[in-house]
Amino acid sequence: VCVDVCVGCDRWAALIDLIHLMFYPPCCDDDDDSSCPGTRDYNPKQMAIREKVFNTIISCFKRHGAETIDTPVFELKETLTGKYGEDSKLIYDLKDQGGELLSLRYDLTVPFARYLAMNKITNIKRYHIAKVYRRDNPAMTRGRYREFYQCDFDIAGQYDAMIPDAECLKIVYEILHELDLGDFRIKVNDRRILDGMFAVCGVPDDKFRTICSTVDKLDKMSWEDVKKEMVNEKGLSEQAADQIGEYVIMCVVGGMDLAEHLLQDQKMSQSKQACAGLSDIKLLFSYLQLFQVTDKVVFDLSLARGLDYYTGVIYEAVLTQAGVASVTTEAQNGAPGSTEESVSVGSVAGGGRYDGLVGMFDPKGRKVPCVGVSIGIERIFSIMEQKAEVSAEKVRTTEVQVMVASAQKNLLEERLKLTAELWNAGIKAEVMYKKNPKLLSQLQHCEESGIPLVAILGEQELKDGVVKLRVVATREEVSHTVDIHTAPHLRTI
Amino acid sequence: VCVDVCVGCDRWAALIDLIHLMFYPPCCDDDDDSSCPGTRDYNPKQMAIREKVFNTIISCFKRHGAETIDTPVFELKETLTGKYGEDSKLIYDLKDQGGELLSLRYDLTVPFARYLAMNKITNIKRYHIAKVYRRDNPAMTRGRYREFYQCDFDIAGQYDAMIPDAECLKIVYEILHELDLGDFRIKVNDRRILDGMFAVCGVPDDKFRTICSTVDKLDKMSWEDVKKEMVNEKGLSEQAADQIGEYVIMCVVGGMDLAEHLLQDQKMSQSKQACAGLSDIKLLFSYLQLFQVTDKVVFDLSLARGLDYYTGVIYEAVLTQAGVASVTTEAQNGAPGSTEESVSVGSVAGGGRYDGLVGMFDPKGRKVPCVGVSIGIERIFSIMEQKAEVSAEKVRTTEVQVMVASAQKNLLEERLKLTAELWNAGIKAEVMYKKNPKLLSQLQHCEESGIPLVAILGEQELKDGVVKLRVVATREEVSHTVDIHTAPHLRTI
Repeated sequence: VCVDVCVGCDRWAALIDLIHLMFYPPCCDDDDDSSCPGTRDYNPKQMAIREKVFNTIISCFKRHGAETIDTPVFELKETLTGKYGEDSKLIYDLKDQGGELLSLRYDLTVPFARYLAMNKITNIKRYHIAKVYRRDNPAMTRGRYREFYQCDFDIAGQYDAMIPDAECLKIVYEILHELDLGDFRIKVNDRRILDGMFAVCGVPDDKFRTICSTVDKLDKMSWEDVKKEMVNEKGLSEQAADQIGEYVIMCVVGGMDLAEHLLQDQKMSQSKQACAGLSDIKLLFSYLQLFQVTDKVVFDLSLARGLDYYTGVIYEAVLTQAGVASVTTEAQNGAPGSTEESVSVGSVAGGGRYDGLVGMFDPKGRKVPCVGVSIGIERIFSIMEQKAEVSAEKVRTTEVQVMVASAQKNLLEERLKLTAELWNAGIKAEVMYKKNPKLLSQLQHCEESGIPLVAILGEQELKDGVVKLRVVATREEVSHTVDIHTAPHLRTI
Repeated sequence: VCVDVCVGCDRWAALIDLIHLMFYPPCCDDDDDSSCPGTRDYNPKQMAIREKVFNTIISCFKRHGAETIDTPVFELKETLTGKYGEDSKLIYDLKDQGGELLSLRYDLTVPFARYLAMNKITNIKRYHIAKVYRRDNPAMTRGRYREFYQCDFDIAGQYDAMIPDAECLKIVYEILHELDLGDFRIKVNDRRILDGMFAVCGVPDDKFRTICSTVDKLDKMSWEDVKKEMVNEKGLSEQAADQIGEYVIMCVVGGMDLAEHLLQDQKMSQSKQACAGLSDIKLLFSYLQLFQVTDKVVFDLSLARGLDYYTGVIYEAVLTQAGVASVTTEAQNGAPGSTEESVSVGSVAGGGRYDGLVGMFDPKGRKVPCVGVSIGIERIFSIMEQKAEVSAEKVRTTEVQVMVASAQKNLLEERLKLTAELWNAGIKAEVMYKKNPKLLSQLQHCEESGIPLVAILGEQELKDGVVKLRVVATREEVSHTVDIHTAPHLRTI
């Protein structure tokens, strides 16, 4: 028994309909709205926005078959030591009150690697959304905080090249598309290509990383300034710098074609490393075409990224929409000295392949290849909050469907009874905690908190055994014979 | 235009149907399954169980119109000082690395009170689910941890007596009922009744609290032992102890009737405090009747609870189901010296009214009356985990609906293409990260991780433009003309 499918763009339409049918009975609305850093509190409005963002991201992770784990907020100090380079000074230590020395987690990647090694896990696709801590002097004006969320998706395991890497990029694409933050671009590069390029350009091995972080500034600084820094501050030869310049300026952005071009490049092709990286980039792009995301993904030779532990593909998503810069300056929450989020203004996601980290936690140094992405969730929150402020529509902080109100005094009992009935029936209902509230104040509460329906109890109505149900927005009173389809305004509830 | 309702048990049925209709089109399935302490990691299976518990609890909180907030994991040390009595020794301090002195939060109630005072909020109904920290020597055997979740619901504001208090009890009832943990009982008492009782029994004012905590042990100790502690350890007079005994032994458990009886009691009626508490208990029970929860709620004179900040009604929910004791001994996670959770074996929720706490954080001492409940979430997790182990059925850690597999080699491209199509259509799909995986291993993966459907690609099928869709459990292959209602086994997917 088979599914007939026509070749072409929607060749799978029939199959998809079929699968949909199996999971969702006809006309089933999935209600995705029904689910949810110095230091600061999050108020209900901020929490409501966060909840929506989390729901979008988590449902994408789940669509890709991810499990989730959680790790303690503090780790043994030694676990974090020597993983973050000079950023280690930003780690929060707990006071020695006896017992082990503990530190607050600095990111979610190191605890993940520790978790895999500790539990001898060699295969997992997991997401982890939690707060991390950095001892930054909180410059609130720059929107930086010492406590902030990170939102990581990682695939651990020995697999065929570039397949999980491609899925990570697909996920970034889906999330940024669904969050509707405006246009974006995903830059891709490979540590091996960078190192290969540095080698053939005559950069001494011990200078790879420091030169790498200078190159990484190309999106904020002019080539002249980048070159100055390389030569004057980092002591690179004029000539080596110019050769790097040829690569990162001449042929900086492209796709498969650029990878192919560089494979032909006389100098570059001398580096085994670079060639390995370049052919993997080609393979990656072939998978990205199958995933239909090549319209946003570019191979960018100038992308370097700070973190030491990357060993292969690296990537970063930036918002290209005009006006974002202004937003994201404000939006650098949770990026205190963070190489993960603060790479460039407008960066909303970043990640790459790190095949060596887990081995650092394994007594026998057994390696577990990993590739992952971190979504710049705090930056996204800020953009969403600004959007909400700009847009007219009010953010609801509760999901109450019905307010049980009374027109006269002494109806508290009736109100409580009805409210309980509604709760028991699974309806989100609210009642005022007053014996005799004014009808007006009850209606005002509905309008302020966006409650769509109000059930109004009155003595006469109770005698007659009826209750009025009013749509707050339209003041219209609806009967129980109303058909959902003929009352379109109710759909928007 | 009105709703006709017949008097009687389901007098509101028509109204309820109507409201349901407006929010949920016919035959809409709400998929509630689609939405997590020394220190320990949570593995995917534990996270899946936590997610279900959280969903049940959060949807109850939302049904009652609650907003949510979040506060930082660390507070200024001074904020926590002097709030927890002798338990303060369990507070985690951060190392002084310059800057303010910080401590990890010990519970969610004090940060909530600090939040209200700081933001001059006088009205809010909020829930907060987050981890708290206690420097207990982790006796893992006893299942205690230094990091654990708390799950609080609180109503702040100046309202008419006992209405919000009654809603808190309704919420406890609903949550324990929905979680299906077995039979339970909710004990209610009032600090004013206890203090009044102590006064009329001749307990010196300065001994109220210490005697209170001894009385609180009645569910674990015999009266004889409790009396010994009062007299020998706490220096109470024999006579006073016996008088207390008369109350807490003779007439320990009841309802409105017991409150009425005590109001008539000669000695008790001499205490204004006790009378105020007793008439509020009567009022509370009248509301609980309207909320239809009196079958599980009892007025228990022996319920004392440890926390100092309670000023009125106090309550605690215990599981009465046989065998729970054994479970909950194991299940005392997150109850290190915690008066909030460890009051008695089997206690799964507790709370009460605290009208003075917010004032402690307000420069002018302005009070905001509060009542709230804390769900013993860690204990509930442990019970659920044990249930899951006992029951045959496997806990799924992912929600993958379809595995895209291939019968022959060299179909990677087709598999990736189809998988992308499914993702784009919002279907939760997985594909193996191998160029040429064996069909058997692909099917095994489905069975291990509970994936219900597998789409099998084969060269011939692709030529014919078809794809096989197989139900893993039954091996049955379904066509796209299948009707959801004639394939009942699919409903269970």
